[in-house]
Amino acid sequence: MTESYQRHFSYKRNCEIRDTSLFPEGMTRIALGVEYKGNFFHGFQSQSSGVQTVQQTLESSLSSICNEPITLVCAGRTDMGVHATNQVVHFDTIAKRPEKAWLRGANTKLNEGVSIRWAQSVSPLFHARFSARSRTYRYVIYNTKTPSALMDKLVTWDRRCFDINAMVDGSRYLLGEHNFNAFRGVDCQAKTPFRRIDAITINKRSDFIIIEVTATAFLYHMVRNIVGVLTAVAAGEKPPSWVGEVLASEDRRCAGVTAPAAGLYLVNVQYDAGLNLPLTAKGPPIIAGLFNEAV
Amino acid sequence: MTESYQRHFSYKRNCEIRDTSLFPEGMTRIALGVEYKGNFFHGFQSQSSGVQTVQQTLESSLSSICNEPITLVCAGRTDMGVHATNQVVHFDTIAKRPEKAWLRGANTKLNEGVSIRWAQSVSPLFHARFSARSRTYRYVIYNTKTPSALMDKLVTWDRRCFDINAMVDGSRYLLGEHNFNAFRGVDCQAKTPFRRIDAITINKRSDFIIIEVTATAFLYHMVRNIVGVLTAVAAGEKPPSWVGEVLASEDRRCAGVTAPAAGLYLVNVQYDAGLNLPLTAKGPPIIAGLFNEAV
Repeated sequence: MTESYQRHFSYKRNCEIRDTSLFPEGMTRIALGVEYKGNFFHGFQSQSSGVQTVQQTLESSLSSICNEPITLVCAGRTDMGVHATNQVVHFDTIAKRPEKAWLRGANTKLNEGVSIRWAQSVSPLFHARFSARSRTYRYVIYNTKTPSALMDKLVTWDRRCFDINAMVDGSRYLLGEHNFNAFRGVDCQAKTPFRRIDAITINKRSDFIIIEVTATAFLYHMVRNIVGVLTAVAAGEKPPSWVGEVLASEDRRCAGVTAPAAGLYLVNVQYDAGLNLPLTAKGPPIIAGLFNEAV
Repeated sequence: MTESYQRHFSYKRNCEIRDTSLFPEGMTRIALGVEYKGNFFHGFQSQSSGVQTVQQTLESSLSSICNEPITLVCAGRTDMGVHATNQVVHFDTIAKRPEKAWLRGANTKLNEGVSIRWAQSVSPLFHARFSARSRTYRYVIYNTKTPSALMDKLVTWDRRCFDINAMVDGSRYLLGEHNFNAFRGVDCQAKTPFRRIDAITINKRSDFIIIEVTATAFLYHMVRNIVGVLTAVAAGEKPPSWVGEVLASEDRRCAGVTAPAAGLYLVNVQYDAGLNLPLTAKGPPIIAGLFNEAV
């Protein structure tokens, strides 16, 4: 390894770099945009039990391209069954490959259920997790009288009649910074229950209801618990003001059911525009025609 | 059984009835609209080898609702990997159940990969296969630079640049009645290679290319062989006039590759309007937003 690498022996792969001179010569940091079907995996993060995860699947494919062990960092870990259209990951490697090789090569070697949408060399100052300004999730409800075999695992099917306006009214209580303890799953490891929701939009198009939530970061099960509360309001079981009551209670037992993982997608991670990462449509592709999205 | 049933001992369940007086009293004929994911099944038709088929899965579910063995007739058998949004089937039963019971009950008991969209009592004169005037298939190509994990098995991914106008020009050679021997699969059992194509439409919307073909009936692999020929034209490998040459050759070896099953959907079966069967969107739901379809 190079002199600078030896000098700064504290460098570990994929760590946050604040001074590019600390990044070893000959090392490249690569960022990837990743899409996956959550139901194929036991969540994103590698597990000691050896069950199939997105991380382990990607690392195995990339390692075979690099001829060295690869360890990934992701923008946001997703749970079992949760999909992503634009998960962002990065890794450090001494291998020199054109960006096309990462993209085409890794896609060829990948198993069913995961694909790479883009690959780009990035500055060592970029870190998939710590450089992220915010994350956006979309929750997709398929609102038809009968279930759809073709949409199974890609949406949450719900046959109830929904009042979208009531749902929108209820969602306003959640905007801004709050203690979201009532919306965190019991296994949540976060040190603080405070999070800031920047935007919630709710749209019904064709047979789909799409709930989009953007926040700096999320607690465990936070989006699915929000959806559980909002659909109870939309179905007329509770008034919109109940959302504010649940939030104020700071008590998980008040919030009701956790919506199923099948409808949830990590659709975007926001970084500083100066990083020039590729812009991609949020998706998922099953609702491609329902929104006029340039990207 | 009733006297009329005994008198007309030649009646067999699900046969074509030309005189309703031959239909046993107490018997009901039920039609269903069925959706399925082809990759979950070894085709529609039950097989002696016992592999999972759509027919066997549906019959098993319906039999448990009727408390009697059920045998289905379908409008058009689909191959392994081919999907349907609106397959139409019928069966005869002595069980008396509200239409809701067929729909909700059978859907509850069905395995992953198949769902019932509607159920309706029909006249004994209706026959899913013989009353059908024509069938419509859609072939869905996902035309992006990188493959999509989320669309896997639901579309055929193709990264080539396609000239849609050339494809449309080529498709015109296929309209009307022709000997489609060049487009039939080697295992085709049909007595005659003559078929009449009533319409072919080709649309590119968002990242999707949708080829829709309507004909009175189809030969084995006919749509997939048509798509193989049309995409070769669209990719600039052959001129549009080559489609006419392939057709005129009446020789399967001239037509090139069979397009994969993953992109193919049986989306509609046309019957006389007087039968009052439910009208449903052709779909598939993954392209719901791309077409303004009332039904």
